[in-house]
Amino acid sequence: MTASAPARTAAVLVIGNEILSGRTKDVNLGFLAEQLTSLGIRLREARVVADVEADIVAAVNQTRAAYDYVFTTGGIGPTHDDITSACVAKAFGVPLLLDERAVALLTRHYPPGQLNEARLRMAQVPQGASLVDNPVSTAPGFQIGNVFVLAGVPSIMQAMFGGLKHRLVGGPPILSRTVSGFIAEGTIAAGLGALQDRYPQLEIGSYPFFRQGRFGASFVMRGTDAGQIAAAAAELKTLIHDLGAEPMEMEPA
Amino acid sequence: MTASAPARTAAVLVIGNEILSGRTKDVNLGFLAEQLTSLGIRLREARVVADVEADIVAAVNQTRAAYDYVFTTGGIGPTHDDITSACVAKAFGVPLLLDERAVALLTRHYPPGQLNEARLRMAQVPQGASLVDNPVSTAPGFQIGNVFVLAGVPSIMQAMFGGLKHRLVGGPPILSRTVSGFIAEGTIAAGLGALQDRYPQLEIGSYPFFRQGRFGASFVMRGTDAGQIAAAAAELKTLIHDLGAEPMEMEPA
Repeated sequence: MTASAPARTAAVLVIGNEILSGRTKDVNLGFLAEQLTSLGIRLREARVVADVEADIVAAVNQTRAAYDYVFTTGGIGPTHDDITSACVAKAFGVPLLLDERAVALLTRHYPPGQLNEARLRMAQVPQGASLVDNPVSTAPGFQIGNVFVLAGVPSIMQAMFGGLKHRLVGGPPILSRTVSGFIAEGTIAAGLGALQDRYPQLEIGSYPFFRQGRFGASFVMRGTDAGQIAAAAAELKTLIHDLGAEPMEMEPA
Repeated sequence: MTASAPARTAAVLVIGNEILSGRTKDVNLGFLAEQLTSLGIRLREARVVADVEADIVAAVNQTRAAYDYVFTTGGIGPTHDDITSACVAKAFGVPLLLDERAVALLTRHYPPGQLNEARLRMAQVPQGASLVDNPVSTAPGFQIGNVFVLAGVPSIMQAMFGGLKHRLVGGPPILSRTVSGFIAEGTIAAGLGALQDRYPQLEIGSYPFFRQGRFGASFVMRGTDAGQIAAAAAELKTLIHDLGAEPMEMEPA
């Protein structure tokens, strides 16, 4: 077991007024949450930040100090409202520079005469940053320190993440198991709390649902020790059974 | 016009490990974003916070000081991982007390003998809080100061919000208009930036898309002055036309 390996942590910053106005429903957070979990990295916090310099700078600096990795999405295109790169440079206290490697990528991508001033903005990165590949539309993301700056368009962000994954140091895999039952949370709460107390290294969550005309709940056990999870799941099934319901390994559809 | 009325601001705190692990995809943020916008309240920030006391207390205190309203979702059920109410009490420096009005609601709701200790936890609110109705499953949310504490289950959260809306003081309605075109962001960026400079009171956003096999972008103008928005939209349509594309009032499907 690798129980002594340090847990790796991360934060996600979703940058963009369109999420905060409700115009666009974010899907990047859910994708990054799943990916990081599968890499053994715990996503500890996420923020949706407006296209406001002071807000972005503060969020970058607070999260990069608190977590092993920070991932930003959005605000790296060619238009005036794309200010993420400049804000990250400011957060790190370094100049934003035209990156020759990025210029070369864009020069190959655009037809002659199309690489105008606005598009060249997409080749600006903070001093000291390394590029993150964009196999979809060329304009790269970048990494500076522990901060990865990615596109907001989901297909591009996902491709960028696929290309940077190897740079991340994961922790022990985070395992999870779900046991459900048509049982009210309030009925099982005392027993469930006692179970959590007996397995302090596991994170036991309770999530109510309403399916097939009945109330029930799913109980999720998460941790890095497969043996503990199996033991807790067995106890939980007994608990559900003793309270008069049938434990199920999955949520009912 | 009410252009001189102060803009009202808000933050949303989505509380729960299940969002950060990727198990559950949050939909509460999008709902609250739309509702607040329609009330003339600008959602300025959102955070997803883990079920960790120090994190919740810090997020509540930072956001309630920075914005007019704070809305939390999640963590007010009967199980051990429901710690939001206790954390909000701690953030305000007041005790968490059994609320007699909430006890009366739950007593009427549950069959005799079913209102156990775990369920009674749902009647605990910070001293000085007022209740928020839960027409779906009775256990109330609450308001303390400028913080509204709501359920995480979307149907319950939405019903609670419907019941508390009248307590909110909105700002001037936030109007928006979208003009789209099959035009590359990099082609229009310079003209769009100049348009933003001419209308500093509007917020002009650019959102690329890929539809019908072609790249394009939607340009959203938001503000409180209908005349300015109409004037900016007219200029934008001319700009798109002059660049060789056809302006559309909506995004293509």
